[in-house]
Amino acid sequence: MKKPLILVVNDDGYAAPGLEAMVSIAKPLGEVVVVVPDRTRSGMGHAITMGEPLRLNHYKTEDGVDYYKTNGTPVDCVKLGEKVVLRNRKIDLLLSGINHGSNSSVSLIYSGTMAAAIEASFDNIPAIGLSLQDYSRNADFTASVHYGRIIVEKVLEKGLPPYTCLNVNIPKSPLEEIKGIRITRQCRATWHEDLEERTDPYGMKYYWLTGYLETFEEDETTCEGALRRHYVSVQPVQHDMTAHQHISSLKYLEL
Amino acid sequence: MKKPLILVVNDDGYAAPGLEAMVSIAKPLGEVVVVVPDRTRSGMGHAITMGEPLRLNHYKTEDGVDYYKTNGTPVDCVKLGEKVVLRNRKIDLLLSGINHGSNSSVSLIYSGTMAAAIEASFDNIPAIGLSLQDYSRNADFTASVHYGRIIVEKVLEKGLPPYTCLNVNIPKSPLEEIKGIRITRQCRATWHEDLEERTDPYGMKYYWLTGYLETFEEDETTCEGALRRHYVSVQPVQHDMTAHQHISSLKYLEL
Repeated sequence: MKKPLILVVNDDGYAAPGLEAMVSIAKPLGEVVVVVPDRTRSGMGHAITMGEPLRLNHYKTEDGVDYYKTNGTPVDCVKLGEKVVLRNRKIDLLLSGINHGSNSSVSLIYSGTMAAAIEASFDNIPAIGLSLQDYSRNADFTASVHYGRIIVEKVLEKGLPPYTCLNVNIPKSPLEEIKGIRITRQCRATWHEDLEERTDPYGMKYYWLTGYLETFEEDETTCEGALRRHYVSVQPVQHDMTAHQHISSLKYLEL
Repeated sequence: MKKPLILVVNDDGYAAPGLEAMVSIAKPLGEVVVVVPDRTRSGMGHAITMGEPLRLNHYKTEDGVDYYKTNGTPVDCVKLGEKVVLRNRKIDLLLSGINHGSNSSVSLIYSGTMAAAIEASFDNIPAIGLSLQDYSRNADFTASVHYGRIIVEKVLEKGLPPYTCLNVNIPKSPLEEIKGIRITRQCRATWHEDLEERTDPYGMKYYWLTGYLETFEEDETTCEGALRRHYVSVQPVQHDMTAHQHISSLKYLEL
């Protein structure tokens, strides 16, 4: 049987330990090609590069995996991977991550990792974004690789519903404390921004964007609820953003 | 009665004619504050600025409107507007645009204009993204201002459902040819990317990202369907991206 073709992308850049962890999941399962940013591109959402040209630099690792680094965004990585690197070959699976940091709740909308998976789902490529609830560069990816492999193998075997990708979040817990895997829905939440004001050496003000996420639904059926109970959260994601439930109540706007 | 507080943002930057058109809608209706990028930031999706500090420069126009220019993204404009410029005052309405170019279908996910409106909806601020189906800098905003004002006035009077914003698209048609306003849903579509390869003067390859949108559902209930029939499309937008319809079929992934 032909080995599945797996495109690996991320938003933390080519040097992130989480990328190495993802490649270690993918390599035994298929033909792996990696297209990733040449630097950290966190919080890029679904941004694409329109005003400047894209670059693509190829290198091969010692164990024979083809890597391509680009100045583009995570979503650009998917487009470059499909069109330029793989020249419209059929991609069997797109893997994005493993992200250093959780992408549960509305974080998925800010996330370059998940945007790349969503981009692939536009083209009906089965796609999985994988994120670990630990921002640290030295995060322990043991549990992520363990559960990531289980999920990836099942998805390669059974596929995904059309135009759907998965937002997989792994709790920051040792492998033996993780209780299992739950299919979840996105919980409501809000970011509380803090814009820290400073003054530069020239007397001009500038601001650092920081903040924290407050979640409002924490039952076991939600992403955050599952993570807090030490379960891996697997949220199916689609890209119709219509508020269907409000269409009839807004008919008063019609003319 | 106190005048409503209206925050205006965009993604085409401070000098875009579409911004002037939006301010002309907002100014007679409330207290207007403008926070916009210092350059074109199209296709930025829900990107935020994490790796570098944000700047904010204030100026006042001749007719007394406060403008703030920032190096940040459209979503950063909303965060800076809420926290730094308006210091958590209650915002009655966020207006984003008027965008030079349509944001129907999946374009809304790439769009900085719509990301700014969605960002406001996270904080339950009524928000409207307004886009004209004409990319040209010299686009005629007459119909956009006419219909934009009608919609903005009604939303100021009646509000919007909680955590919901509107994606309003105006057809590229003279005012007298536009038939009215339709509440729509997002149609399925895909971008066909073209990555044009060139060689720079140093012999290195680079790529320009271009493409076109193919839409698959064009009945009158969809955004594209309404536009093609010369109606203004008003799509209510929410930010739960869960594929609820696929939760049960994915239970086989649970452990």
